[in-house]
This record gives sequence, structure tokens and C-alpha cells, in this order.
Amino acid sequence: MVKFNKIKRCVSCKKDAQVDILYPFCEDCFIKHYLRRVEKIIKKFKLVEENDNILVCVSGGKDSLSCADVLNQYRNTYSFQIGILHIDVGLYECTNERTLQVVERFAQERNIPFYLVRFTEYFNIDIENLFKKSRRPRCSICGMLKRYVMNRFARENGFNKIATGHCADDIIRFFFKNWTNYSFEWIDKLKPKTERDCLKQITRVRPLFEMLEKENFWYTKIKNIVVAGCSQCSFFMRKDKWYDILRIIDEKDRYFKLQFLRGLYQVDFSFKKEEREFKECKICGEITDKDICAVCKLVKR
Amino acid sequence: MVKFNKIKRCVSCKKDAQVDILYPFCEDCFIKHYLRRVEKIIKKFKLVEENDNILVCVSGGKDSLSCADVLNQYRNTYSFQIGILHIDVGLYECTNERTLQVVERFAQERNIPFYLVRFTEYFNIDIENLFKKSRRPRCSICGMLKRYVMNRFARENGFNKIATGHCADDIIRFFFKNWTNYSFEWIDKLKPKTERDCLKQITRVRPLFEMLEKENFWYTKIKNIVVAGCSQCSFFMRKDKWYDILRIIDEKDRYFKLQFLRGLYQVDFSFKKEEREFKECKICGEITDKDICAVCKLVKR
Repeated sequence: MVKFNKIKRCVSCKKDAQVDILYPFCEDCFIKHYLRRVEKIIKKFKLVEENDNILVCVSGGKDSLSCADVLNQYRNTYSFQIGILHIDVGLYECTNERTLQVVERFAQERNIPFYLVRFTEYFNIDIENLFKKSRRPRCSICGMLKRYVMNRFARENGFNKIATGHCADDIIRFFFKNWTNYSFEWIDKLKPKTERDCLKQITRVRPLFEMLEKENFWYTKIKNIVVAGCSQCSFFMRKDKWYDILRIIDEKDRYFKLQFLRGLYQVDFSFKKEEREFKECKICGEITDKDICAVCKLVKR
Repeated sequence: MVKFNKIKRCVSCKKDAQVDILYPFCEDCFIKHYLRRVEKIIKKFKLVEENDNILVCVSGGKDSLSCADVLNQYRNTYSFQIGILHIDVGLYECTNERTLQVVERFAQERNIPFYLVRFTEYFNIDIENLFKKSRRPRCSICGMLKRYVMNRFARENGFNKIATGHCADDIIRFFFKNWTNYSFEWIDKLKPKTERDCLKQITRVRPLFEMLEKENFWYTKIKNIVVAGCSQCSFFMRKDKWYDILRIIDEKDRYFKLQFLRGLYQVDFSFKKEEREFKECKICGEITDKDICAVCKLVKR
């Protein structure tokens, strides 16, 4: 429970508040408020449509499990299906028997089809060796391989959308990171939905786009969802200097992240775009702008 | 002098460094580096052209005095003229006999035409009374009146450009402030040069767009420029929460501000713009999108 110096009241029902992230709420009202906000994003950006078959990528952390849990609750209301994909990246700090067990049980309990891909088998690699061979940062290599697996697995298994648990904190860190690197191509994709650029690509949706990490934490806690998070990273390389910076901003202004994010909806960035030609990799057939895709080049198939 | 635990060397001449903001420099090399960076902005964004007559608005603080000093040094090289305008806003904490004296002496010593406008006389008002009558924040009212005076005074006295001492710190604070208020119209103007929207408007230039407050501080200090700064605000309302937030970011990453700013050059924001119709105020003839401009409405002329 969050401790208050003075007992605050739930802004909704006036009972004692137990969670105070953006506004003070009791547990029940917090969950309602949380679901209402996610549903608003789902509707506003048309993240789901009738007969969608959505592959939810779940690492076992609070964010991806919250995402899967919310989508699971709405699948009847909006008539779509979901499946859960857990990717074992082969690094004990990130995924292991515990994360696998947590995600598999989560899926079983909710009767959601469960899929497992292990990098070691899928790519026939040892990721530590790849790290040694490549000059790219570890998280960048791991992220690239995960995106490859997600897209290809979804397409080859009849899914028309991929959902990830990226939350407000991820998006904002990613914004700053890429803004200060002048990587505007990436920033342009920071929306709740990224439509496919070409046929082989699967549309990406981020239902928790507006939800704060802290809110996801409380969502899983109140709903008794067992979590087994990666302790090091996420697709978006969590624990960098931006992590610290945003924590400090948060202490000064608890509404900053949400306000900043909502700015992103209202703006389109125009910048000098490099014309990208979409080709198919000569080895694996996946999308690339070269003859051989970056993944095949790295894993030397 | 900035104290170093270990004596650093000037990155340029290898003597002992005395200033270490972005990179360690000795005093001479710092000044050269400072001027080189400002000149680069002046050229890149064509801030000055031959035969320009530029009104430099100088409060007496380190930023506006640095701006005036740099432009004064370049006026022969690039064949333009400058004049200095000091606006006495009628608030002792902001402008007073000391700031007036500092700015007037600065202009005299450099043989720059000097102009003084006092709000009390120009508008025939007592600004404290205006503050009481209006619901707008003090800095917002003061800023509006200053912009009015600058534009009108420049036009009526033969100046074709207005230069202000806005620096990187101002611009970034302003970016965040307006982004989180969704005031994208203002953000769109955050460039080193704002071209006029209509005939009665004077082009605005910001030669110190990329310079950090700390750099301006050291520039005036090393060049022995006497400074008498406003202790409360600036046009951009300095001491708000963004002031603290940026100070903290700065401690984590000394290059953030510069990198963030350079991102601004490379992006154009597109957003739903309100179509603004430019009219002339029926009382004073200045630009407005209503029948009576906001200034005349406030000062009830």
C-alpha cells in the first residue's frame, strides 16, 4: 500500500484511497479507472477490430502481463481473438524457467493459446556469442531479434496484429533517446498503432501507450497477477540515463508523462525521410532494405 | 573559476582549462569557441543580411548583453547596423535605475544608439494595477506588453529586425511548457529566426539560440561586461518547475540541451492550426485577430 501522511479519499467513491499515482483511488475504483483509460485508447485509435487475431508478446513483466490481461477481458466485448507469445532470449537475467512458467500459467488460467520461441532453437545461436561478435549494444541486438521473431511468427501463424506492453514510460524514454540522436524515423512510429509499411509486416498496437509503469505495477498487484519480470532491460532499454531523468521529472510533476504523451498524438513530425525500399531478404524472405537482412547477417545463416 | 578535481586541459590549446561547460577551455579559447558557434547560427539561418537595421532588446541580464555584444562585434563584418532598446517595465525587481544605467553605459561605450521605453509613459499605466485587474499570470502580461513595444517601436523607428537574447535554456523550457499545454503554435516559432506573418510584424532573430545560460554567464564574465539582471523572470518565465527539471537533466547529461535543441531544427511540426486572420486593432493599429488587440483591451486606451 502507498502510505499517505494524511489519509486521502478516493476521488471516485470517497472511501479511503489506497493507490495514488495520478489521482487517489481505492483499489476497486483504480481498476475501473485503469480499464476505462485503456479502453478509451483502444477505441480512439481503433486498436482492435472484429475478427482480429492478435499476438500478444509477453515477457512475464508487469507491463506485458497487464496488456495481455486487459486484451483478454475485452476479447468477447469486441469479438477478437488473442494468442500469447513468450520469447526465450537465452539470457538468464531476462528469460528463464521462472518467466516461462509464469507466462504459460497466465495463459492456461485464461484459456489463451500459448506459444514459445527460443532464440537458441529459432536462430540456432548462442546469444552471448552474438553479443561478442557484434559491436551493437546488447539490448539493441536482442530487440532486433525479438522484432524479427514477433513479426515472422505472427504472420506465419495467422495473426493479423501484434500487441506489446509498451507503456508511457517506455515511449517517453524512447522519444528523448531518439530525439537527441536525431532518429526521427523511430519517433514517427511512437503512436498507439503502427500500420504496416508493406505486406509482410504486421500492424503493431500498444494498448498501454498512456499507462504509467506504476499504474501497471498496481494493476497486476491488485489483480493478483503473478509477475516475473526481466531485471535488466526491455525492448526499449529501460535502465539508461533517461530512466533516472524521468524519475526525477516525475517527482517534480506527476502529470508530466501523461501530458507529454498526449502531445505526441496531436503532432505529426515532418523531417527529411530517407526513401526506404522494401525488399525481401535473399536468405529468409523477411523484410529488409538490403539484399540480406540484418538478422541473417548477424546470425550468419 | 570552475574548480576541477583534476586539472583539465583546454581541448583547443592544451593550456589549463578555466571554463568547462560543454568542453574544457581556457578563457581565450572559450571566447573563440563561443563566437564561432554564434556565427555559425547567424550564417546557417541567415539571421543578418547586408544593410539590416536590427533592434536588440536588452534587459541588462547576461543573455541579452551577450547577444548585443556579439552582434556589435559582427556589425562591420556583415555590414549591418544595430540599436539597443531597454524596456523599463515598472517593476523594481525587473528593471530599475541600475539596469538602465548598465544598459545605457554598455551602449555608449560601444557607440550603439540607445533607446528607452518606459511602460508607465508608453502605455500610461501602473503595471501593478494591471496585474490586479487581469487574471493572466504576471509574466504573461509583462511579456505581451514587451512584445507589443518591441514590434511597434522597431517598425516606427526604421528597424527591420528584432534580436533578443533568448538562449538554449529558454527555448527548451518554453518547448516543454508549451508541449505539455498543447500550444503547438508557439512551439512552431522556436527557431533561430521567425519570419513575419504579415507586413506590420517585424522579423525576430535569436542569435544565442544554441548558447547555454552558463555559456552566456562566462562570456560576460570573461569579457568584463557589467551585468544587472532581472532577478525574477524573463520573457519566457524562467524560474518555473522546468527550470529545476532542466537543471537536474543537465547534471545527468551536459550535452542534452544542445542535442535536444538541434533536434528542433530538423523537424517541422504539423498539427491542426487555427486559421488566423490578421487585422489591425481599431484603437492602436497594431496586429490582432480581433477588433481590439489584447494590449488595448488590457490597458483600456
